[in-house]
Amino acid sequence: MESKVRVAVIGGSGYTGGELLRLMAIHPKLELTVVTSREYNGKPISLVHPNLKGIISLNFSELNIDKISEKADAVFLGLPHKVSVKYVPDLVERGMRVVDLSADFRLKNPELYKEWYGYEHPYPDLLQKFVYGLPELHSEELKSTKLIASPGCNATATILALAPVVSSKMVDSYQFISDVKVSSSEGGAQPSEGSHHPERQNAIRPYEAEGHRHAAEAEQELSNLAKGRVKVSIVPHAISSVRGALASVHTWADLDDMTVWKNIASFYRGKKFIRIIRGNIHPYPDPKYVIGSNFADIGFATEHRIGRLTIFSAIDNLMKGAAGQAMQAFNLSIGLEEDEGLRLPPLRPA
Amino acid sequence: MESKVRVAVIGGSGYTGGELLRLMAIHPKLELTVVTSREYNGKPISLVHPNLKGIISLNFSELNIDKISEKADAVFLGLPHKVSVKYVPDLVERGMRVVDLSADFRLKNPELYKEWYGYEHPYPDLLQKFVYGLPELHSEELKSTKLIASPGCNATATILALAPVVSSKMVDSYQFISDVKVSSSEGGAQPSEGSHHPERQNAIRPYEAEGHRHAAEAEQELSNLAKGRVKVSIVPHAISSVRGALASVHTWADLDDMTVWKNIASFYRGKKFIRIIRGNIHPYPDPKYVIGSNFADIGFATEHRIGRLTIFSAIDNLMKGAAGQAMQAFNLSIGLEEDEGLRLPPLRPA
Amino acid sequence: MESKVRVAVIGGSGYTGGELLRLMAIHPKLELTVVTSREYNGKPISLVHPNLKGIISLNFSELNIDKISEKADAVFLGLPHKVSVKYVPDLVERGMRVVDLSADFRLKNPELYKEWYGYEHPYPDLLQKFVYGLPELHSEELKSTKLIASPGCNATATILALAPVVSSKMVDSYQFISDVKVSSSEGGAQPSEGSHHPERQNAIRPYEAEGHRHAAEAEQELSNLAKGRVKVSIVPHAISSVRGALASVHTWADLDDMTVWKNIASFYRGKKFIRIIRGNIHPYPDPKYVIGSNFADIGFATEHRIGRLTIFSAIDNLMKGAAGQAMQAFNLSIGLEEDEGLRLPPLRPA
Amino acid sequence: MESKVRVAVIGGSGYTGGELLRLMAIHPKLELTVVTSREYNGKPISLVHPNLKGIISLNFSELNIDKISEKADAVFLGLPHKVSVKYVPDLVERGMRVVDLSADFRLKNPELYKEWYGYEHPYPDLLQKFVYGLPELHSEELKSTKLIASPGCNATATILALAPVVSSKMVDSYQFISDVKVSSSEGGAQPSEGSHHPERQNAIRPYEAEGHRHAAEAEQELSNLAKGRVKVSIVPHAISSVRGALASVHTWADLDDMTVWKNIASFYRGKKFIRIIRGNIHPYPDPKYVIGSNFADIGFATEHRIGRLTIFSAIDNLMKGAAGQAMQAFNLSIGLEEDEGLRLPPLRPA
Repeated sequence: MESKVRVAVIGGSGYTGGELLRLMAIHPKLELTVVTSREYNGKPISLVHPNLKGIISLNFSELNIDKISEKADAVFLGLPHKVSVKYVPDLVERGMRVVDLSADFRLKNPELYKEWYGYEHPYPDLLQKFVYGLPELHSEELKSTKLIASPGCNATATILALAPVVSSKMVDSYQFISDVKVSSSEGGAQPSEGSHHPERQNAIRPYEAEGHRHAAEAEQELSNLAKGRVKVSIVPHAISSVRGALASVHTWADLDDMTVWKNIASFYRGKKFIRIIRGNIHPYPDPKYVIGSNFADIGFATEHRIGRLTIFSAIDNLMKGAAGQAMQAFNLSIGLEEDEGLRLPPLRPA
Repeated sequence: MESKVRVAVIGGSGYTGGELLRLMAIHPKLELTVVTSREYNGKPISLVHPNLKGIISLNFSELNIDKISEKADAVFLGLPHKVSVKYVPDLVERGMRVVDLSADFRLKNPELYKEWYGYEHPYPDLLQKFVYGLPELHSEELKSTKLIASPGCNATATILALAPVVSSKMVDSYQFISDVKVSSSEGGAQPSEGSHHPERQNAIRPYEAEGHRHAAEAEQELSNLAKGRVKVSIVPHAISSVRGALASVHTWADLDDMTVWKNIASFYRGKKFIRIIRGNIHPYPDPKYVIGSNFADIGFATEHRIGRLTIFSAIDNLMKGAAGQAMQAFNLSIGLEEDEGLRLPPLRPA
Repeated sequence: MESKVRVAVIGGSGYTGGELLRLMAIHPKLELTVVTSREYNGKPISLVHPNLKGIISLNFSELNIDKISEKADAVFLGLPHKVSVKYVPDLVERGMRVVDLSADFRLKNPELYKEWYGYEHPYPDLLQKFVYGLPELHSEELKSTKLIASPGCNATATILALAPVVSSKMVDSYQFISDVKVSSSEGGAQPSEGSHHPERQNAIRPYEAEGHRHAAEAEQELSNLAKGRVKVSIVPHAISSVRGALASVHTWADLDDMTVWKNIASFYRGKKFIRIIRGNIHPYPDPKYVIGSNFADIGFATEHRIGRLTIFSAIDNLMKGAAGQAMQAFNLSIGLEEDEGLRLPPLRPA
Repeated sequence: MESKVRVAVIGGSGYTGGELLRLMAIHPKLELTVVTSREYNGKPISLVHPNLKGIISLNFSELNIDKISEKADAVFLGLPHKVSVKYVPDLVERGMRVVDLSADFRLKNPELYKEWYGYEHPYPDLLQKFVYGLPELHSEELKSTKLIASPGCNATATILALAPVVSSKMVDSYQFISDVKVSSSEGGAQPSEGSHHPERQNAIRPYEAEGHRHAAEAEQELSNLAKGRVKVSIVPHAISSVRGALASVHTWADLDDMTVWKNIASFYRGKKFIRIIRGNIHPYPDPKYVIGSNFADIGFATEHRIGRLTIFSAIDNLMKGAAGQAMQAFNLSIGLEEDEGLRLPPLRPA
């Protein structure tokens, strides 16, 4: 009998960590062996993740790389930016498989860490070794890497909307505005004034509207695809759903619907987690219909009168926007089908 | 290679139907062959259930018992009350397995159909042949039946709360008030004034508060368990979640916590879908933490000062309250583990 | 020209404080002169209450009783329990009008503070001087007092439901269960894990289910009315609305509808903020339809089969459950109509 | 004693109608005399608007222009597009004051009705006599008219965002994308599949994304202001709040913050219902903080890296986006202060 891959989760008490655990609990080829949490060390996982009661019986443990490297072959890191970078090099040195869900290894150009994240990246060489974990763009590289930098949620939504546009060269100008509507789980598990229920519920609130960091990775990936400079401005808005994000990516371009459709369909042909939305009853993507799954639904609208093209991209921010995508990329890197353990239909209604 | 059981869904366009389809799509031992809908006959299933796009490629067909009996070994009916009863006898006669999710075969005493549903039941003999599909109470009977009457959601929540109480004889009076808080999906997929979003969102609205029908089946099952007359008054309240129901079942009884806990734990020992909730951080059940799964979370509160006992029961109304439970019962009836295809961890947060 | 009453708000940064400010901003006979906040001392009120931008231009000041007594004739305190009691005696001594929205002066029997709030009340004599600020029960006393202890929200909903029941002697047993569904603003403006949006939204979560403190004041008031011992168990449930609370108060009693209706109607005859709900389209109260107003909607359901009576009481927890009621009581105490400045129709839809 | 203006509401059973009634109930200078509803003729207004129980005791009556002209001096029409136009000419002929909340008299160029609304406007001359009821642009004309065409909600949000931009000539290109997030009450009181609570709650759903009609009136007004052709593409998204709309209006322009701020502040100087939002804690407008009021909160974001300017505009769609604005314009036309009866602070939290 084939042995399972032993996996650890570092930083397993947040929402991304919890979603990784949910996925690992049903993944037929993975065995979860360690979950760390500084705050909850020694406590049952179900204390923090009550949904997992009766499903995962492990306790949280402390972050000890020696122990982790004994018990696991691969590590998923659900740590904040600038924290992940403290542990990743050691894991890499030990030859472990690493899936980092922070931003710390997403950007190839170390200069961008200064510009966007305000720190000098201490391991510029390591940046080159990581593969940006968006399987729709990098499936071949993922199959031959042990190091995955998993994309940000708003970046994922934006890149998936624009990849067919910039790679097909169907537009003249490579400058886009990605107006993103995001649910509250995107902000993480830490309470704050803005996330306090009476303040967040019914909000329609722009935030980080003057330079959202995910633009850096979106521009990196899209410029590579376009073989030219692509500029994207991401403007996120907090709304009152718990899960789901929609990117409405706008640009000035007068294209007929068939051209747009064909380019999107052709770009994503055979991609298991991309669904192209077009029709009468549900003409545009809505994250409501991907909740709980790893799908990204892509659609578009054109307004010829004014020469506008909008590409819509709908994801579950914790799945295709975080844990699901990390698992999809990891599956490829260990030689599995990309949808292994991820064939979860979305919930409806939810 | 072992062949799959071929299943049909009659009435597959509603929420319960859709949830059955979601479960069948991932069930390893079932093959979905027919889904009927009068309204959407000939149309793709994903037109009505956009979550299932790319997952189920069948079209809806018309309700033709001849064709269904050719293509399927078992039928799940997601029809309204009084409609199901028109088709079930024919299916039974053909020797098919039947899982009826309406109320039409839940009650053993035909008189109760007059009293609670306002019609003379045309097949009183058939009522005796159906097993009430609550596996926590009837697992043995389910293993040897082809006919399952799947319980109502508010009845399920109420019965699961009270079963340990009345079977253990820990209270003197068998009279209970089940104050249920229900999400909007419980009302089905048909729009109405009360379900119009601006009216339903933020509502805390009692309904059917003077004789909710699910009391009939709850009293039937609980009286059987208690070997004596149990009376339950169910008072449902519409609130603004989409999924999930909580029953808070109140009675006057002065019991110490350990007694209550032991009776509940003992009654549900080994039951895969029952989780007993007790603790500091999450002291009581909350349907939020069972969303998407077949779990029922059971907990309780005592107030000794006044001699009150409340049992809480939290379910996902479309899963343990409908489709999930139907699948659990069906698994038993075809000789599978009860949790086959149902090992879905709840989503969190959702 | 008639001079206005000068009012101060101590503890004006929370939700109850903010709601008081909203009401004072439109009250024709009050002049808001001081608003204190320890945390926001010196900062503009609209920084904390962005809804009041352009409406109230005061800054928060520190809590200095000397200054307050110079600038104001009356003080509303929006402080936590056990904190209010530190400032109230000084204000009383200076002869100021006091409206305390904490629990510190609601109970007449000082022993109850030990039992329910865990402290020895330092001013037992002062307790007797405060009038419990529920105008539907104490309008005459309110007209001749300067000291008002404003009721708790769950207590208000429970008392308003039961007052006609216990005063009319229409039931035999004076023991009730008040199953309350409460919105998130009831928990105040301080973020916590339970109030974090992703955790609170879609929750149906019992809390303080083994002895909610508001029972103490509810029993005090209802026992007075009944001229006998009334016992009430309050079981609150957090749900995902922002405003509004519904109490469903259950008891065993077999009464015909007309009797119940008459007793309620007779008890509340002429009360400006009580609406009795009975009808076909909207048969029961729903807090959704009192949002933003000081109304309490009262209704009921009977189930004769089982001998159950439920009284429903719907309020906006920040209005009739807090600031609105405080203003109503204060109006009476300064010789105004009780609805002065409170004639705000509820929002719909909201 | 000064007499009140007698007003009628034609089409008073919808949300806009209900909001007009809420405002009229507290307006000191208006007397509501007639409210028509075809569907509810003869029934109490509070049957349809349960919030108004105890506040408005009128019954709905039929739409009879003769009777209305006897009883009222002014008429507000809350009818659908193409229906309003059937009644308005008769009302105009009788010399009545008319406030039409439909689109039927908003556009000056009759050709646009063919293009955007699909019908030949039968009264092109009458179009010229109506004043577009946006008081921030047309206060002088409103003071001398009896005929008001009240703006659409998404148009209002978009125009208020762009008016300072196009009038100040601070941008080069007059082409904008208004990405609007709208609450469910904007869709009106009629249930539909898309408004069914389980479908609408948690949705983030683009709609009418290929030519939203409000662009026509927005372009008309903005082109007038700019004294040149302005083009706006409005892309609305249904989200799950009940009230409130946010327009995020994007364009490519590299401007410093002070310039933008000054132009907005200067344009709106002295406007009672415009609040300019800028700061640390609440840096951008959020419709959450205008709920229940007639305010429009305006703010902006610049991203110099890429040369993007976004103007945000937050309104309560039933107030500044419908009934509140209609009342504001009407106040001006009858010689009152524009905020008469509209000095309602927003609710918080709501």
